[in-house]
Amino acid sequence: MTTQQLQDQIQLKKSFLCVGLDVDLNKIPQHLLTLEDPIFEFNKAIIDATHDLAVAYKPNIAFFEAYGIKGWTSLQKTIDYINEKHPEIFTIADAKRGDIGNTSSMYAKAFFEDLNFDSVTIAPYMGKDSVEPFLAFENKYAILLALTSNEGAFDFQTLQVDGKEVYKHVLETSKTWKNAENLMYVVGATKAEYFTEIRKIVPDSFLLVPGVGAQGGSLSEVCKYGMNSNVGLLINSSRAIIYASNGTDFAEVARTEALKMQEEMATILSKV
Amino acid sequence: MTTQQLQDQIQLKKSFLCVGLDVDLNKIPQHLLTLEDPIFEFNKAIIDATHDLAVAYKPNIAFFEAYGIKGWTSLQKTIDYINEKHPEIFTIADAKRGDIGNTSSMYAKAFFEDLNFDSVTIAPYMGKDSVEPFLAFENKYAILLALTSNEGAFDFQTLQVDGKEVYKHVLETSKTWKNAENLMYVVGATKAEYFTEIRKIVPDSFLLVPGVGAQGGSLSEVCKYGMNSNVGLLINSSRAIIYASNGTDFAEVARTEALKMQEEMATILSKV
Repeated sequence: MTTQQLQDQIQLKKSFLCVGLDVDLNKIPQHLLTLEDPIFEFNKAIIDATHDLAVAYKPNIAFFEAYGIKGWTSLQKTIDYINEKHPEIFTIADAKRGDIGNTSSMYAKAFFEDLNFDSVTIAPYMGKDSVEPFLAFENKYAILLALTSNEGAFDFQTLQVDGKEVYKHVLETSKTWKNAENLMYVVGATKAEYFTEIRKIVPDSFLLVPGVGAQGGSLSEVCKYGMNSNVGLLINSSRAIIYASNGTDFAEVARTEALKMQEEMATILSKV
Repeated sequence: MTTQQLQDQIQLKKSFLCVGLDVDLNKIPQHLLTLEDPIFEFNKAIIDATHDLAVAYKPNIAFFEAYGIKGWTSLQKTIDYINEKHPEIFTIADAKRGDIGNTSSMYAKAFFEDLNFDSVTIAPYMGKDSVEPFLAFENKYAILLALTSNEGAFDFQTLQVDGKEVYKHVLETSKTWKNAENLMYVVGATKAEYFTEIRKIVPDSFLLVPGVGAQGGSLSEVCKYGMNSNVGLLINSSRAIIYASNGTDFAEVARTEALKMQEEMATILSKV
């Protein structure tokens, strides 16, 4: 998918919502557990109920891997379902991968070729040659961790190097890498005041923003400081949407929650 | 496995060799491709040929994920084979994972419970709450990336923070985390001169050392600066052993290469 197509979808749907698929068998409605593939059935119902309100889905790979081969099968079915039914939707493999070059190439093959995701989240610690293999695919994107939404973000990401935090070095250095136009960045909503500084370094890039809702970040604050002229934001919500109800009405209630976010986004978009 | 058991194996086998299983279908002997599960058959042959010379095996998870469900099946069979046939061998899932707490818990479940690895490699960028879930398992280990063997290690790991490199902050800070005794560290052999400084911070920890052989690191240099009184090193070799031949004699030639390394290790051990 091109970024232009993603921007068009945002304008069409008046939404920059990404729904995170963190499917835990202990949290999904119990009536699904009698089905052959509860994880896929849960995802399918969530997708059916929210696809007109969201521009992206983000399966969290850990939640599939935890169930081994069965989990990987559910992942394959989930991404295939999205790509077949809703090819206009941007897909993110939330995998936080990153390794030496030949290994990163294998991960890129796994997510971009075998599974056919549009993007994958990447950890920057191992530097240039661990990320560039993900940038070598046309219209595929590496979403690099910059400043994450968790408490541990302050352990290393905000250490000061020559008066500038490590995450800013990540942003600046990554811009020099080959095919850097295929980079997007993870920036946590819990740190809205950082967006102004971040936008000085990466004014045009898409930012994937976790941490709105369950983790306490504010949508309006993030938009105020983080939005660019092409919107440039994908706001993720996982648990607040998919686990809004764990009854038989879970998909319907998930839609209600997604609709609330989409309406808030439409209001923000109407004012810019 | 306890670290004492690992140390005992090192003394018994006179080896601290870890064999990396980075199995690429384009590189393995072509005669295996007619079998139902070439990746597993390759691993099985390598394991059968080297298990008395190595104390650890390190499947590189990317190389399995790249083949989707089939790859995950090969991984499951490989780890099951090691655990059944050679339970004394330390197993490392080379996965470079790390995510927010509840997600890291799912990865820990995947590698420690579902697959039953002894350890998993972890990226430190997201800090404490992304690593601690891996430390909560008794006799299981998180092997944290400190200073990696690739060129990109110099992008962020060696940035100076208050006169000290980022990777040293990673080492120091990680020691304060809960169950820190379950930490080991990745330190690349290509940077042997760094081991002296690293040993000042983590004198007692096991270090997993990639980069000997194919990537140019020297075994004797690493041992000179990195060995502690319990040895404290696991030297990984992947391609130099497993792809030493791609003929029908591949396992035999892999053994020859592993034996060379084991003999070099035995000599080093006899001198300390």
